[in-house]
Amino acid sequence: MPQLTLLTADAVVTMDADRTVVPGGAVVVSGDRIVAVATATELRSQFPDATEVDLSGRLLMPGLVNTHSHSGLLRGTAEHLPVWEWLRVHIDPMHRVLTADEAEAASWLCYAESVLAGTTTVVDMWRFMERSVAAAAEIGNRLVTVSYVGAHPDHDYFDSLDDNERLLQRCQGAADGRVTVWVGLEHVFYADDAGQRRAVDLARDYDTGFYTHCSESEIEIAEFDRRFGARPVFALERLGFLDTPRTMLAHAVWLDDAEIRHLAQRGVGVAHNPVSNMKLASGIAPITAMLDAGVAVGLGTDGEKENNNLDMFEEMKVASLLGKLVRNDAAAMDSWTVLEAATTGGARALGMDADIGSLEPGKKADLIAVRTDTPRMTPLFVDGPFANLHHNLVHAVRGGDVDLTMVDGCVVVRDGKLVEHDLPSIIARARAAVPGLFARRAQWLASTHEGDLKGVFHAEV
Amino acid sequence: MPQLTLLTADAVVTMDADRTVVPGGAVVVSGDRIVAVATATELRSQFPDATEVDLSGRLLMPGLVNTHSHSGLLRGTAEHLPVWEWLRVHIDPMHRVLTADEAEAASWLCYAESVLAGTTTVVDMWRFMERSVAAAAEIGNRLVTVSYVGAHPDHDYFDSLDDNERLLQRCQGAADGRVTVWVGLEHVFYADDAGQRRAVDLARDYDTGFYTHCSESEIEIAEFDRRFGARPVFALERLGFLDTPRTMLAHAVWLDDAEIRHLAQRGVGVAHNPVSNMKLASGIAPITAMLDAGVAVGLGTDGEKENNNLDMFEEMKVASLLGKLVRNDAAAMDSWTVLEAATTGGARALGMDADIGSLEPGKKADLIAVRTDTPRMTPLFVDGPFANLHHNLVHAVRGGDVDLTMVDGCVVVRDGKLVEHDLPSIIARARAAVPGLFARRAQWLASTHEGDLKGVFHAEV
Repeated sequence: MPQLTLLTADAVVTMDADRTVVPGGAVVVSGDRIVAVATATELRSQFPDATEVDLSGRLLMPGLVNTHSHSGLLRGTAEHLPVWEWLRVHIDPMHRVLTADEAEAASWLCYAESVLAGTTTVVDMWRFMERSVAAAAEIGNRLVTVSYVGAHPDHDYFDSLDDNERLLQRCQGAADGRVTVWVGLEHVFYADDAGQRRAVDLARDYDTGFYTHCSESEIEIAEFDRRFGARPVFALERLGFLDTPRTMLAHAVWLDDAEIRHLAQRGVGVAHNPVSNMKLASGIAPITAMLDAGVAVGLGTDGEKENNNLDMFEEMKVASLLGKLVRNDAAAMDSWTVLEAATTGGARALGMDADIGSLEPGKKADLIAVRTDTPRMTPLFVDGPFANLHHNLVHAVRGGDVDLTMVDGCVVVRDGKLVEHDLPSIIARARAAVPGLFARRAQWLASTHEGDLKGVFHAEV
Repeated sequence: MPQLTLLTADAVVTMDADRTVVPGGAVVVSGDRIVAVATATELRSQFPDATEVDLSGRLLMPGLVNTHSHSGLLRGTAEHLPVWEWLRVHIDPMHRVLTADEAEAASWLCYAESVLAGTTTVVDMWRFMERSVAAAAEIGNRLVTVSYVGAHPDHDYFDSLDDNERLLQRCQGAADGRVTVWVGLEHVFYADDAGQRRAVDLARDYDTGFYTHCSESEIEIAEFDRRFGARPVFALERLGFLDTPRTMLAHAVWLDDAEIRHLAQRGVGVAHNPVSNMKLASGIAPITAMLDAGVAVGLGTDGEKENNNLDMFEEMKVASLLGKLVRNDAAAMDSWTVLEAATTGGARALGMDADIGSLEPGKKADLIAVRTDTPRMTPLFVDGPFANLHHNLVHAVRGGDVDLTMVDGCVVVRDGKLVEHDLPSIIARARAAVPGLFARRAQWLASTHEGDLKGVFHAEV
């Protein structure tokens, strides 16, 4: 019989369909799976041979699912521009000069920041992602790779579909199954006709998901209309992108009602990034309308350059605040709804809800312990008429309150620190990579004509 | 010659008028005052006898000035209602039964949370504030007391103007000058004519400030019009509230252009509370218009029941995000502007800018050390073309990154922990106070008629 571990805490927030919270709760883990969730008292008698880990002063909940992020090294250096100008001036020139070593340093940093803040699953759109897979294998997070692909002569400085296919062949299921490889496209505008077709075919041939940015900013609507004579979601439909085994869109800010209904009908997932959308002045995504229509909505931090941190607790709070503001209703985007988006909603959007998103027997042991012995958790009512545990988690707690992070049954963060790796070394490596990257970007910018600095709204297509 | 302390760090963010940042910077402190700010190299040679405190891996900046908060014990238990309903159902009934002991437990908790997150000055609107003064004297924060006064027969369950006057007599300048006592009024609607006049007189007679909530929600506009035939700011003017030595308004969400110009002309300060305004669906304050008009704007967290934490770093981020969203401009409410609101802007709104808000010789030694050895601070450029320190402080760092807090020259937080007090005891005391408070509130609610549960929009005035 395999080793059993009994984790006991002040409470277990299961995030099951009934939103069950177990006061004095505990979780039994065997290998990479959850065996049982109940009170500590019940489980001690049911599993007398289990090794008990005492997490009093903490609660247990599912690890958070970050459905949209980018590894990166540009934090705080690309500010104050709307998204498409920002891509043209700061981001795409960085992609032209990025090396695999730099990309790997970025993934180490971002996955470390993620697990330290309670994120167990990272959906990462990034480059040279065999290196990202190596980083996740070491850091210990679950990873959905979404290659940052350009498939157009004007955008040949991204990863290619060949790169993405190689990743599908080599890394699907890597790191004991913690790695899932999807097909990515920076944006449909970053692919020519052949590229668009091949991206769809790849997702089908390898029976995996397709992921892209869509309708982040309002100017895309007119450009979709000009190119395809349709709004974005219906253009994606026509191009076959909704016929893949699974499709997920990041942002989806500028959707009309017909597009929302269509996403729900077609089972397309959406990553909602309220901080990024506010910071880049992209707009306000119609999240409550999507949820009402049954769209699977997850939350995402977006990257270090858009947010500028990777704290899903903060993202939950801003999602709630923005939802209340836009509806002019203090009850909108309530705490349970937001917690669901950050856990089960993200899992469902990714098609991984059989395995992750809640603490239930048979699911993967992806869980976190959040400190309850803090001012931010005072007072704390786990149940009863004043139950506030869910409100505290969304509106008071931050990622720094995460004390323990377990992924696939392995403890990767304990006492708020990485178990297997030295954080200062990870930070030092990222910092060491930055000056060279910036110098080469400056060199590229100096050597190019202004006319070459074209974004998709400046290029002839 | 008094003892000199030389604090050396990776950088000093002075928040002076030129926004000077000193790489390799240091601050010399003598007693409660700053003596010098320059590079560590310069200051070591200028003050060879100073005792050096090595804060490498951290930066120094002014302590944050929280211009609006309430001590409290209701975190997460009063959710999902717009402000005036929420007052009527949850908050005012709590005030009817609150005891001095409970109030003091709340102040201990909230000041501890504040200094741990880098706030050195707390403007607290609360009850039984001799107890709050005692808490601040112990915790070590700077405190501006604003008594939660009701001066109307329908609202006689708050502190009275007599209470406020006693506080003025007993506590002005307490705790070595760290305590400043103002005159408070929950809202002008919570005072009758005589109460309004006496509040103005008190502020004048004791040469101090007057502080109230104003224009937090849209329904106030019509009620001000009904009662006074004027918009709120002009009603306050007519009632004499802008003729006090200093006046400050919390929220100021629903101002028109004439009101904004008037506040600027009359030197009235405003506390901007973006998280609270979003959470209670109050609306969006016209902050950039106020700043453009020259109004002194500070930031505030509001209380544990409105926010639900007291993290001014989070408040800065949300202030920036909301400013960008409402202006549809990614450059709006830029990081320096937000940092100024949280430091010098708040100090100016309080009329305390000669003493606090920036790190400059002659000012009070109210400063904090923020960790730079974190993923959230990676990469870090203190100066040069990619300078991102200010963006990291606003958009990436959170209160948990504060490592050291000094107020009035005394270290109150070191290594992220209270120096003089035991946080678990403070938390335990607050938690112990809550069940009794809630039970008495429930008892009061059960014993009253629905008609007695009247808020200001339900009462006959």
